[in-house]
Amino acid sequence: MDLPPERTSQNASLSEDAATAKRAGMTDTQRPEARSPRGFIDRRARDLTAERKILTAVSAVYERYGFEPLETPAFEYADALGKFLPDADRPNEGVFALQDDDEQWIALRYDLTAPLARFAAQNWETLPKPFRRYAFGTVWRNEKPGPGRYREFTQCDADTVGSARPEADAEIIAMAAEGLVAAGVPEGAAVLKINNRKLLNGLMAAAGVADEGQKLAVLRAVDKLDRLGPDGVRLLLGEGRLDESGAFTKGAGLNAGAAERVLAFTAAGAGRAETLGRLADVIGGSAEGDEGLAELAAIDAALTSLGLGADRAIFDPAVVRGLEYYTGAVFEAELLLGTTDDKGQPVRLGSVGGGGRYDDLVARFTGERTPATGFSFGISRLAAALRAAGREAAADLRGPVVVIVFDQTRMADYFAVAGELRGAGVPAEVYLGASGMKAQMKYADRRLSPAAVIIGGDEFAAGTATVKDLDLGRALSKGVTDNAAWRAERPGQVTIPRAELVATIRKILDAQSLDSAL
Amino acid sequence: MDLPPERTSQNASLSEDAATAKRAGMTDTQRPEARSPRGFIDRRARDLTAERKILTAVSAVYERYGFEPLETPAFEYADALGKFLPDADRPNEGVFALQDDDEQWIALRYDLTAPLARFAAQNWETLPKPFRRYAFGTVWRNEKPGPGRYREFTQCDADTVGSARPEADAEIIAMAAEGLVAAGVPEGAAVLKINNRKLLNGLMAAAGVADEGQKLAVLRAVDKLDRLGPDGVRLLLGEGRLDESGAFTKGAGLNAGAAERVLAFTAAGAGRAETLGRLADVIGGSAEGDEGLAELAAIDAALTSLGLGADRAIFDPAVVRGLEYYTGAVFEAELLLGTTDDKGQPVRLGSVGGGGRYDDLVARFTGERTPATGFSFGISRLAAALRAAGREAAADLRGPVVVIVFDQTRMADYFAVAGELRGAGVPAEVYLGASGMKAQMKYADRRLSPAAVIIGGDEFAAGTATVKDLDLGRALSKGVTDNAAWRAERPGQVTIPRAELVATIRKILDAQSLDSAL
Repeated sequence: MDLPPERTSQNASLSEDAATAKRAGMTDTQRPEARSPRGFIDRRARDLTAERKILTAVSAVYERYGFEPLETPAFEYADALGKFLPDADRPNEGVFALQDDDEQWIALRYDLTAPLARFAAQNWETLPKPFRRYAFGTVWRNEKPGPGRYREFTQCDADTVGSARPEADAEIIAMAAEGLVAAGVPEGAAVLKINNRKLLNGLMAAAGVADEGQKLAVLRAVDKLDRLGPDGVRLLLGEGRLDESGAFTKGAGLNAGAAERVLAFTAAGAGRAETLGRLADVIGGSAEGDEGLAELAAIDAALTSLGLGADRAIFDPAVVRGLEYYTGAVFEAELLLGTTDDKGQPVRLGSVGGGGRYDDLVARFTGERTPATGFSFGISRLAAALRAAGREAAADLRGPVVVIVFDQTRMADYFAVAGELRGAGVPAEVYLGASGMKAQMKYADRRLSPAAVIIGGDEFAAGTATVKDLDLGRALSKGVTDNAAWRAERPGQVTIPRAELVATIRKILDAQSLDSAL
Repeated sequence: MDLPPERTSQNASLSEDAATAKRAGMTDTQRPEARSPRGFIDRRARDLTAERKILTAVSAVYERYGFEPLETPAFEYADALGKFLPDADRPNEGVFALQDDDEQWIALRYDLTAPLARFAAQNWETLPKPFRRYAFGTVWRNEKPGPGRYREFTQCDADTVGSARPEADAEIIAMAAEGLVAAGVPEGAAVLKINNRKLLNGLMAAAGVADEGQKLAVLRAVDKLDRLGPDGVRLLLGEGRLDESGAFTKGAGLNAGAAERVLAFTAAGAGRAETLGRLADVIGGSAEGDEGLAELAAIDAALTSLGLGADRAIFDPAVVRGLEYYTGAVFEAELLLGTTDDKGQPVRLGSVGGGGRYDDLVARFTGERTPATGFSFGISRLAAALRAAGREAAADLRGPVVVIVFDQTRMADYFAVAGELRGAGVPAEVYLGASGMKAQMKYADRRLSPAAVIIGGDEFAAGTATVKDLDLGRALSKGVTDNAAWRAERPGQVTIPRAELVATIRKILDAQSLDSAL
């Protein structure tokens, strides 16, 4: 692989500044810009705290269902990952790939399923079967970034490899529903939508669609129903569709009758049993379609025994899922939480996860069919949706107690104070910048510190410490409390014997949670 | 970028099998091998549990010191990362890089420090200053893999940006020491070794070394002291060294007097104050050397006030750290836990983390000097070292209770049983494979299940359940307990009313921890 050209070398006689610059890898005239690559973002405490809470909660659900943790590497050989992304017509086929020293192509995982298939194939002999694993980690998609659309995100998956039972699918669906509740989605505010690729295949057989390319085009058209509506999908099922930007997408080339049949199939139903009955009529007895219907009936029974009614899991024939490796049941988790955008328009939070059965993926390696099914939460997306809906878990963004540096020569004393607080379990730090008192207090306020500890000459002489209640100041400045009552209760600033420092800080921490103070 | 050639297309008339194969992305003759790229590994429950415990413990220490979490992306622009890896002579300079669609080079982060510098430069105006953040995540090195040497690993860092105070270094060192204890390293079984690049620079000034390339060669030679000993380093300081494989490494080209002076400097000392005194003699009053000595003296005072004596943090003039961006204090955490290899030879567990001051890294972007210091734990390495020393945190590898499928027509009942157990907080699963009773019991045993629940025709009729105590079976088979006593206490298999199921399972879980049963 070619690398960018070396930076211009400096000549031998270097000034002091130039030497520093060279040591730091730059020249006078060439300074890198501080920015992230397109589609990649930095995440700070608020986002991270929310995502970690969701990961922890969902992982606990997976473990309660008997799934063990597994982490596979970020890189896989490109041939092991396969090419299953819906965006396959883009350059690089949607993955970040590079050629290793030994000339083999390696690529960053685009999901956690393809690596699991590789792992299962590699270790099949020694694994307990069925093999149940959960995993969370970063995945990468080399796609065109857009607003809220990133090229790196976190998934949290659970999969069962080695079971062909529809009950394995049902269990995965039930875990997903339970995971949503654990993540903070109120019951009734999310629904699992279930379909089966075999139904779609059966429908196409009944409609006379035999060509694999045409089948794929039909699937892709149906997959866009949410976004384009029936009229848009009708065009994509037929000759094609011209979008607003003037770009033309070639259609699947179905005749009008076949296209209407597909559209009729995709209409969503009410109860699970009713939907199955209606689908049986549309599909009209193709062998693959009937197989799909039988699987969905078994999933229905298992979901019912797990207590999941049609308020939490429905059959939706329009669900396709973009990844090409699915072979049977497919599922999608959709949030129903209502929210509005800046203009007051309702916003559809949409899919926060999905999955399905991929019975051929392990066979790519071994040649032996190994049935498998799984589900993946998009953790970043789920966190963002919960935030948008005002359902974000309350993050503890409170900063540490800040020990103010009043006297530069007493750093050792300030360090001892901070150590004492930490020893009592109270996050604390000594201010380590170079600024004066006012800037230090401002710093403590920006860190959302509950309190600042001030020990100057008087305090050192008297064996005391002054504690300033910063929560109070923030509350007063926002006018959220009754000033008089607060002031009586909380004096704002107290000078106390050094021995009472920890107790005084604790009182402030207990008195007022950050949430109500802000 | 070129991609590997497309797989051969199948022709239009496909058999059923070939269609499946094509859907799965393979041809009859071409099947990918199931293996990971060189230097990348899969990690399962035992490793993951240990690493997650360490991450959680170390993160809690960082938060107690007032550091907030931050996650930057895996990719940075190559110019933003810079070229600071010690392995710079390898192709690709030690990083995984690729060219983005817009022709710009992006690379996976090789540490968490360079991305922090980019983040700090980008957001400096709006950050509280000093800015303290911690981070954990995967980093990648495009190096030659070897035994125990991977190209992907987890780091956990804490850094303070915007403080030039030596106390900021001292605090980082104290956190590292406390982090080791939190991670499970017994007090006294690890030491933080501290040095200052300015001393090394001062020494070189005193020895007449002015050329930047020669300075770097001296640093690299000293960095190999642990591995090559004084004789090997003497060769590298002089003309060069021929290693066992016949490869020749060019030396720094110092004359014999200068080389001896460097070697004398690197001899480790006892107490921190004594070491400082001795170094002052060797360095002989160069301005940069004196600056380094003054910084170390301030670090010594702050460490003392934080209660860190010379048993936990020493000055070691041989510590260099490989990364080129360090400008002042450098530190390294070394485990002193004793362990032996298969042949009974003592094994040096060595460095499990390191860090230092990098005052020029933010200035690469902004042109304004922004002092910074930090420390990074190699989490995978720390976990491996603790395991090697037999100090691994006891991982809870116990599997779920397995509900045996005795009667295929009663799946709904088995699901309800598993649901009841999970509802009571007990991990549980229904066996979802296709095998008979014997294989199911073997499966439960391999999962390290505490118990199996068997409900057959008799039990259904009588409203009972049979519970088999699998911990007992494992204990007996390993002969670790007094059989008679156990048998009296724990009958091995009981049939109980269905209503007592949860209580019976709980009794088994409480009776015997996995550790003693194994």
